[in-house]
Amino acid sequence: MPHLTVEYSSNLPGYPEAQALAELNAAVCASPEVLDEADLKTRFVRTTDSFQVGTEAVGRAFVHAQLRLLSGRSPEAKKDLAGRVAGVLRRLTPRPQGLMVQLSVEIVDMDRPSYVKERL
Amino acid sequence: MPHLTVEYSSNLPGYPEAQALAELNAAVCASPEVLDEADLKTRFVRTTDSFQVGTEAVGRAFVHAQLRLLSGRSPEAKKDLAGRVAGVLRRLTPRPQGLMVQLSVEIVDMDRPSYVKERL
Amino acid sequence: MPHLTVEYSSNLPGYPEAQALAELNAAVCASPEVLDEADLKTRFVRTTDSFQVGTEAVGRAFVHAQLRLLSGRSPEAKKDLAGRVAGVLRRLTPRPQGLMVQLSVEIVDMDRPSYVKERL
Repeated sequence: MPHLTVEYSSNLPGYPEAQALAELNAAVCASPEVLDEADLKTRFVRTTDSFQVGTEAVGRAFVHAQLRLLSGRSPEAKKDLAGRVAGVLRRLTPRPQGLMVQLSVEIVDMDRPSYVKERL
Repeated sequence: MPHLTVEYSSNLPGYPEAQALAELNAAVCASPEVLDEADLKTRFVRTTDSFQVGTEAVGRAFVHAQLRLLSGRSPEAKKDLAGRVAGVLRRLTPRPQGLMVQLSVEIVDMDRPSYVKERL
Repeated sequence: MPHLTVEYSSNLPGYPEAQALAELNAAVCASPEVLDEADLKTRFVRTTDSFQVGTEAVGRAFVHAQLRLLSGRSPEAKKDLAGRVAGVLRRLTPRPQGLMVQLSVEIVDMDRPSYVKERL
């Protein structure tokens, strides 16, 4: 059930997306919260050039991951999962000279009673 | 006010997006929860090839719908709406030979007091 | 920490994205809720042509902004922030002849305890 979306700004060219996909999914699926590895669906999104960090138009980049889980996880489990995602992205995110790069990871609870999940 | 976003993995080519848009909006707008059909805003998003389901890099696909509603709906209403969305996607999602396709539908409550809605 | 995503339908060509980025970030960063202007990360997303508003396939457009903040803001602060975003988009969104254009702004609380934020 987890959905992981990793978004990064277009001024981080050469982001190793394929490697990050493999490492992110290995790290998250190793959590005891993920019962079936096939449940984790991860995608990368690169922004267009229409982004801005703060009030300065240049010199700043970001990568932001959002992990959506069915509600009911403990605060500790959420922190652990966020740490797994951050660990991979911290290691793999490019750090171009002269660019301030921000990394953030967000955990989102999904409404469990109304969630639909099927294999077609 | 409802926002519906349907995202699917890029290994589901030929997704009948136009037909799905028409059928999704008809199904959701027929709910008593939607007072004005013009409030429903639906969009399709196809992932790039940078996605991965679980720890295996191939052989798996997904379609995920997120319906965002102003808070205050009953659990029954949310389940009904999720079922309307799932019903259309279950019928229209391609099932290529040899691919495991996952379908999921998520209902999200939007914060009502701070929501802005206008016609320009 | 705030994340702002502005999405608009593809039938609003010529959207002044660069100007809107500058004005949105100036307006939001002027809020007392934003302690460091560099925390605000804003991006524009234009839908593909696969969108539909309500049950009519043409004649309708939308722009939708989502501002994600760490939880804990007062209802008044959220309303103020939504108003800042709406104010800029109301002024800058194109209004092509014959098109009904909807504007909406949504404030989302992000789970604070599990949130990761770093500068790389």
